[in-house]
Amino acid sequence: MQPSPSAAESRSLTRSELEHASPLEVRRAIREGRWRTNTKRLALGYHQANLTIVPERYAFDFMRFCVANPRPLPLLDVTEPGDPVPRKVAPDADLRTDVAEYLILRNGEVADRVRSLEGIWRKDHVGFLTGCNLSLDRVMLEAGIPLPHLTSEEAFPAQYRSSVQCTPAGVFRGPVVMSLRPVPNALVVPLIELTSRYALSHGAPAHIGDPAAIGIRDLSKVDWGRENVIPPHHTTMFWACGITAQAAAMESRIPEIIVHAPGCMFVTDRVVKESTL
Amino acid sequence: MQPSPSAAESRSLTRSELEHASPLEVRRAIREGRWRTNTKRLALGYHQANLTIVPERYAFDFMRFCVANPRPLPLLDVTEPGDPVPRKVAPDADLRTDVAEYLILRNGEVADRVRSLEGIWRKDHVGFLTGCNLSLDRVMLEAGIPLPHLTSEEAFPAQYRSSVQCTPAGVFRGPVVMSLRPVPNALVVPLIELTSRYALSHGAPAHIGDPAAIGIRDLSKVDWGRENVIPPHHTTMFWACGITAQAAAMESRIPEIIVHAPGCMFVTDRVVKESTL
Repeated sequence: MQPSPSAAESRSLTRSELEHASPLEVRRAIREGRWRTNTKRLALGYHQANLTIVPERYAFDFMRFCVANPRPLPLLDVTEPGDPVPRKVAPDADLRTDVAEYLILRNGEVADRVRSLEGIWRKDHVGFLTGCNLSLDRVMLEAGIPLPHLTSEEAFPAQYRSSVQCTPAGVFRGPVVMSLRPVPNALVVPLIELTSRYALSHGAPAHIGDPAAIGIRDLSKVDWGRENVIPPHHTTMFWACGITAQAAAMESRIPEIIVHAPGCMFVTDRVVKESTL
Repeated sequence: MQPSPSAAESRSLTRSELEHASPLEVRRAIREGRWRTNTKRLALGYHQANLTIVPERYAFDFMRFCVANPRPLPLLDVTEPGDPVPRKVAPDADLRTDVAEYLILRNGEVADRVRSLEGIWRKDHVGFLTGCNLSLDRVMLEAGIPLPHLTSEEAFPAQYRSSVQCTPAGVFRGPVVMSLRPVPNALVVPLIELTSRYALSHGAPAHIGDPAAIGIRDLSKVDWGRENVIPPHHTTMFWACGITAQAAAMESRIPEIIVHAPGCMFVTDRVVKESTL
């Protein structure tokens, strides 16, 4: 008996197999359940994005919230209400199936985790895609900046609610969530120079050094992601993070919002290039 | 009798007096009725913006229309509903008073021209500011590119509806309006290089050469602005233009939209720098 193509295709993939895959191949692997975890190092060189889905009645508020807070929420695309296709950055994708795991928040609490939004996506849903640091994995690797999440399968940045507040827009308000990277001292300036040229992926760091200066009192109390050990001769550097959208949804306690599970980004067709705001 | 300060301030100003004025000074001159015409060469080096005001029920559609069509409509700021202050690009300005002349369109037709929106601005009005070519007057002058509108008080770019269509969003659809500049042949490439670095001011030209290729059959039939004579040894170059918003309002026949009168831009506090989309 011949093995069917679908059986052959159904095996799980390894991260190294998807590093140099196209965004379409990565999205297909996710859609078919052959990739079910975080997207670091996948489709290197393409923009990865935070996904935020809100009912249309909150969508104009959320869009202004992104434009008012472009460091944490650089807007890459927004869908027409009810249309699950992000036509600007991935016109053959489907926001209902192309993210490995989704969180459904109701009234500011995580109510469900699902692998697909089929049967959940509604005609009044609007999807927003905003920039993400993982988009810079390729330029980091090419620049010889070995951040922990790039060299260890287990490592992932830690994210914290900071004391820095977003500019409110409509119902949305809340803290800027900051993403921590421990950086060898000698690489601090090169990393500032590098990241400052990519505004659509959060740009330059928002803070360097003492976490308490931005209201983070205890690095072991991680709000999202995984705790990072700070080795000797390393500096704590913080970047504005797209999870800011989720924190705002929690703080605003809007009745419903759907987001990607942390680290499980949407992979776009957009090539990473230097960008400004 | 001493002349009162208000009397002294009430005299009209000359363009050269406002060329190197601050954006605040230009806005004050406009607010006080001491500057009542187009804003070319004013507050050189700061972003000038197209103003579009729509009722809140059309605002999310219009915001998506801007994001879907960033060449004609690069978004610089959007106000909270009912708030006439563009807090991102000019936090001490007032959209009701700081534009020299406004057009009120109803159902796709110009219904009125007014000098102020006091008594007209409502709690459900949302203001959008989008980028404008006049923002580049300073870099054009510094680069030694003497476009006609910079060297002659009477000259102003001509704008035409083209056959290039915008990406629709919600109720908004329509042609990309193109702004014509006749450019000496030797300056065509330098001008492409220069403008391509300023995406927030429409970036590189959308078309060069035969106007018929973008559906413009007769250059003497100007839709907005003033007819430009094309001298010998000059090339017709076209850029996407912010009047695209007004054309979309006309085509969509939305019940109400308020825009700046052509050429009478809103002057922001934002310094012009190289930008991407």
